Amino acid sequence: MDSMKAVVKTGPRLGAELLDKPVPKPEPDWVLVKVRATSICGTDVHIYKWDPWSAQRIGAKALPQILGHEVAGEVVEVGAHCKRIKVGDYISAETHIYDPGDLTSMLGSFHVGMNMKILGVDFDGCFAEYFALPESICWPNDPSIPPWVAAIQEPLGNAAYAVLGEDADVAGKTMVITGDGPISLFAVGVARACGVARIIHLGKYDFNMEIGRRMGADLQLNTNQTTPKERLEFVMDHTGGNGVDIALEMVGSQNSIDDCFAMVRKAGRVTAFGIAAESPLPIDYNNGIVFKGCQIHGINGRKIFDTWYRNRNLLANGRLDPTPVITNLFPLAEFATGFDKMIERPRKSAKVVLFPDKEEYDAAVKQMGKT
Amino acid sequence: MDSMKAVVKTGPRLGAELLDKPVPKPEPDWVLVKVRATSICGTDVHIYKWDPWSAQRIGAKALPQILGHEVAGEVVEVGAHCKRIKVGDYISAETHIYDPGDLTSMLGSFHVGMNMKILGVDFDGCFAEYFALPESICWPNDPSIPPWVAAIQEPLGNAAYAVLGEDADVAGKTMVITGDGPISLFAVGVARACGVARIIHLGKYDFNMEIGRRMGADLQLNTNQTTPKERLEFVMDHTGGNGVDIALEMVGSQNSIDDCFAMVRKAGRVTAFGIAAESPLPIDYNNGIVFKGCQIHGINGRKIFDTWYRNRNLLANGRLDPTPVITNLFPLAEFATGFDKMIERPRKSAKVVLFPDKEEYDAAVKQMGKT
Amino acid sequence: MDSMKAVVKTGPRLGAELLDKPVPKPEPDWVLVKVRATSICGTDVHIYKWDPWSAQRIGAKALPQILGHEVAGEVVEVGAHCKRIKVGDYISAETHIYDPGDLTSMLGSFHVGMNMKILGVDFDGCFAEYFALPESICWPNDPSIPPWVAAIQEPLGNAAYAVLGEDADVAGKTMVITGDGPISLFAVGVARACGVARIIHLGKYDFNMEIGRRMGADLQLNTNQTTPKERLEFVMDHTGGNGVDIALEMVGSQNSIDDCFAMVRKAGRVTAFGIAAESPLPIDYNNGIVFKGCQIHGINGRKIFDTWYRNRNLLANGRLDPTPVITNLFPLAEFATGFDKMIERPRKSAKVVLFPDKEEYDAAVKQMGKT
Amino acid sequence: MDSMKAVVKTGPRLGAELLDKPVPKPEPDWVLVKVRATSICGTDVHIYKWDPWSAQRIGAKALPQILGHEVAGEVVEVGAHCKRIKVGDYISAETHIYDPGDLTSMLGSFHVGMNMKILGVDFDGCFAEYFALPESICWPNDPSIPPWVAAIQEPLGNAAYAVLGEDADVAGKTMVITGDGPISLFAVGVARACGVARIIHLGKYDFNMEIGRRMGADLQLNTNQTTPKERLEFVMDHTGGNGVDIALEMVGSQNSIDDCFAMVRKAGRVTAFGIAAESPLPIDYNNGIVFKGCQIHGINGRKIFDTWYRNRNLLANGRLDPTPVITNLFPLAEFATGFDKMIERPRKSAKVVLFPDKEEYDAAVKQMGKT
Repeated sequence: MDSMKAVVKTGPRLGAELLDKPVPKPEPDWVLVKVRATSICGTDVHIYKWDPWSAQRIGAKALPQILGHEVAGEVVEVGAHCKRIKVGDYISAETHIYDPGDLTSMLGSFHVGMNMKILGVDFDGCFAEYFALPESICWPNDPSIPPWVAAIQEPLGNAAYAVLGEDADVAGKTMVITGDGPISLFAVGVARACGVARIIHLGKYDFNMEIGRRMGADLQLNTNQTTPKERLEFVMDHTGGNGVDIALEMVGSQNSIDDCFAMVRKAGRVTAFGIAAESPLPIDYNNGIVFKGCQIHGINGRKIFDTWYRNRNLLANGRLDPTPVITNLFPLAEFATGFDKMIERPRKSAKVVLFPDKEEYDAAVKQMGKT
Repeated sequence: MDSMKAVVKTGPRLGAELLDKPVPKPEPDWVLVKVRATSICGTDVHIYKWDPWSAQRIGAKALPQILGHEVAGEVVEVGAHCKRIKVGDYISAETHIYDPGDLTSMLGSFHVGMNMKILGVDFDGCFAEYFALPESICWPNDPSIPPWVAAIQEPLGNAAYAVLGEDADVAGKTMVITGDGPISLFAVGVARACGVARIIHLGKYDFNMEIGRRMGADLQLNTNQTTPKERLEFVMDHTGGNGVDIALEMVGSQNSIDDCFAMVRKAGRVTAFGIAAESPLPIDYNNGIVFKGCQIHGINGRKIFDTWYRNRNLLANGRLDPTPVITNLFPLAEFATGFDKMIERPRKSAKVVLFPDKEEYDAAVKQMGKT
Repeated sequence: MDSMKAVVKTGPRLGAELLDKPVPKPEPDWVLVKVRATSICGTDVHIYKWDPWSAQRIGAKALPQILGHEVAGEVVEVGAHCKRIKVGDYISAETHIYDPGDLTSMLGSFHVGMNMKILGVDFDGCFAEYFALPESICWPNDPSIPPWVAAIQEPLGNAAYAVLGEDADVAGKTMVITGDGPISLFAVGVARACGVARIIHLGKYDFNMEIGRRMGADLQLNTNQTTPKERLEFVMDHTGGNGVDIALEMVGSQNSIDDCFAMVRKAGRVTAFGIAAESPLPIDYNNGIVFKGCQIHGINGRKIFDTWYRNRNLLANGRLDPTPVITNLFPLAEFATGFDKMIERPRKSAKVVLFPDKEEYDAAVKQMGKT
Repeated sequence: MDSMKAVVKTGPRLGAELLDKPVPKPEPDWVLVKVRATSICGTDVHIYKWDPWSAQRIGAKALPQILGHEVAGEVVEVGAHCKRIKVGDYISAETHIYDPGDLTSMLGSFHVGMNMKILGVDFDGCFAEYFALPESICWPNDPSIPPWVAAIQEPLGNAAYAVLGEDADVAGKTMVITGDGPISLFAVGVARACGVARIIHLGKYDFNMEIGRRMGADLQLNTNQTTPKERLEFVMDHTGGNGVDIALEMVGSQNSIDDCFAMVRKAGRVTAFGIAAESPLPIDYNNGIVFKGCQIHGINGRKIFDTWYRNRNLLANGRLDPTPVITNLFPLAEFATGFDKMIERPRKSAKVVLFPDKEEYDAAVKQMGKT
């Protein structure tokens, strides 16, 4: 167990390589995990492409670096100062490594600190056979949750936090969810599982909209085939002329942001989750916020570990089935095909899961009934 | 439309009579409703039996009085000063008539005022062909909700408020629900619809426990066949040794109250809904409240109209099906059989719905597939 | 009591006239009030000037119309269907007349309905000896509160709602408050009374900044004499580099909005109260909302009657003294001088109170020690 | 710096001894503090007396043990794995050492875990010249807060959490606070600082009631000189017949608990902070909780570190002056006199502060103007 296969970003250009790397040694308050499943995030795609964001955020000097941060695995070694995680634990990972000295951390908002580090961005990631991470961000999985589901809990947690907002007050309410990327699709499922009474889903790719339908959307609108005015009228028609109680902005485009501030009812809530392509950008401050008396919740990451706890309960008790969003499974060695699926437009995939171990892959293919 | 059939409490003794009564004239801010369906509440049973509570609360001097307060019907007349309800509206009724001058009303807690009046207790009720009530407590139903479901929204609202508590923060949490009367059974269904992730249901009558199972209970315990210690161990075994996030006390017995304060986890929530047979009664104040750092929500009635809004959304969108709890349908004239079903022990029924109109009854029997 | 003096907007041009008008007759659910004190709001100034907003919102056809909506007085007549207000009550008025059929009203958010009417805008106002208004918006004052303070409770309520936000969670927190108009100055006082631990006040007029200091600002910044960067550094220096827990935007300028989103700490709260001069306007959506994980509360009006209740308690128990903000007292007949004070720039006044009754005016001047 | 003076519980009997003890060596994630001021808690008195609670909770086998847990001091050494505290930091200590693996810890309720350890109870305490404690519970003080105030922040935090409850929604509300021990007196001051608009204080010792008056009580009732009925009528008379918005039970006696459930208004809040002398004990469950629709917050410890943050802000900005509650200062060597003051009845003291360093003591005496 000295050497392992890993997907490594070797230089400031498109792509990555499968290389032999030494198995990492965990720090005293870190643990070492044998990776059972790992999934590809949009952030990984940015780094894979080496777009301007990654060139600036990571920088060529940091390379070579192993990609990946969405993970499920078994703990095979714990540092001497670990306190709650033990060898043999089946865990997933919160990917935001908070600084315990941040004011926000000291006040319990661990997910939005000043000095946050991120797995797979500031450190080597988990697209590998083994992976080291701080104990502080390890989350014990329920054994009934299969690795390919446990791995996607990180983006599922984004979705849950976006749906639930700061107060988790969603039962019996109406909701708009924009976007058809994996997190939007997960959000549809979480909203359905958590008692949102009417879900209006806005997206543009047929393949993914069909997944949204399977995840529980009641009504759908294709944003490529409708005007803002048509969409607003549709939402008003289906909410007694009031607008929705809650609007989840999960795209970051001007159109989607405008849609959400127009569609939310007076005294309602907007979740601001999508990262705007450009910022600052124009917002209808008076009609969308002030006169509407609405609340906006900026949502970033997941509540540590409140979101994880709720999702574990929902998954372990069969309340939420995220597998329609998991569209592709690959052995780790075929990572490049996985990235291609993620990059392809129009979208024909949502979540791609990779397996370092061939047997685990075969078992997953068999159980999921798809590849 | 001058005279109508009505179930009237005529004297201070067991029973009631079906009599011809004049159709009421609504006050300027009241409305008149043609009753389509009405259901029997435990309060009606108290009055029907004329037990010490009703003798004291209503008093023989108030008789004769028409029974009933759970209702769905069509508005056929509105007083001159009504502002939001119109003739033809299909409504149900909040039964707590709040005083707009109460401090609690002025602060938005309409359901717990100092000078509350109650339909069917302080006024003539709805076990009749027509029924008059204040506009202020009318709730417009969604047309897709059938009358027998619309009628039971009042106790369903108790259940929803008990489940959701003051903050509606239940998604992904674990819950104990005690009791197998109609409101406990509705609570199981609301909890399931609103994303409670694991529901442990405690009751004692086989017939009703089976309804609890159909409403969505994950685990059940028969309180007649278990000791408090066994029940506590069971709950601890199924919650990782922590206890449940939320415990709903819906019985009012010493055993059930003790169960709830023992079973709730630290920093959890107890809903105090059941009315204790005797009060004061002993509570484990230190271990159950102070050291546990838990919250108790005293729940009485329904939030006006927050609870109604959420339930309407859940019902109209197929998120919640309360019909397994509706065990019996009768024409209004057969009200006595309905009361017998409610009084029978061991319980062999949950909610009984009465229909003043024979055609409506026949249609309900046909659609529900039961009588 | 057939005729009364009133300040009337007679035509679509600058100014108003003091005329004899008939004393209004209240509707069955309205009351008639003898006005003891009334104060000038920025909205009155808009109408007085007949700027484009008033020309469009009110329209020349609605004239003549009596101005004014901030009021304290004694109820001298109640309509036949009034339920909680009695002749002799000493009241002030919420000025937002909600529609009880609005969804928001039915859910308890009376202050942001779809069909809101406004006193003095959609109806005759209170710059008169007598004034009629709906019982639904009457608020009983504590008798210990003098009329000139009771009258300004309406803008004080704006300030309180802006400070407290939706959750009233402010104790021991740090706060930025922008602006030096009357509502900003009231907000400083409310924040101080409610346990905000450090108040940083931003304004530009020396006269009003001095009032802010007297109301309890800990630190002040003149926005005319500082750059955005200097202001941000100042706030960071005084909050351990974190930013403030809560930022109250009460100006509506691009600079002030930008300041607030920059100065609020991660996971903090921004109150959006100021109406933007132009909307849409650019907001730093990513850094100010999404990545910050902050909450924005759009604040409009006052919570009915939660805000009123809290302010009554604060005023009646000497916790909050708003009188430094009341800069000028005039007999009603000298209303034009009052408007001149409000319009003057640089500002040399904050709140102007008018008195229909000369004796009341003399008493006020004596007690306040100012004119 | 090898040996130090410390107040040691040497055997299972009344009292303690001032002994020379080795200066402790901090664990890798602990720190060593030079104690500047330390105060005596009721828990210390229990252990000093060696009453049945301490005999059972600590046990003779654990002795000898150093007493004390309320502390302010300077960090003189940090373990190798400390992450946020540095040598030279001026700190106080949360005394509840949470287990990071508790479910409650993982959900952010660090103060009510399953496996909690307590400073001075499960470990050597701070009545000594030096003191070792985990970094996880260190709180950085504002340098402007003198040591005798910094030391009492732990019980002040109890008071703040009791006043603010789970939601910190207290501004402009009315409150009953029972008891005249130090934490009740601190609570009066916190309530006053945080905008509670009317504070009704119940106690029985003249000396301490006078402190309550100085801390900001508006109205006071001596429970030795009044009946429950008289007290209830008094509260109703001063709250418009409604009862108070919030009642803080801080005694634990049957009378005080009954007072609080009777005095809170409908839909109000009761803080359950006092530990009942006997538990279970009778509670008026129906009238006090269910029909009242009130909320009970079980309060134990302090929110880590939300309560600390708010109190630091209040203290550093002069919003809250707790010094009237600090009635006695002694050099550490005179600890026995301090304990005598704490034990004396009728009470003639509230908080007693001890100083290991004579110069620090002299400075404190000079600044406080009392001994």
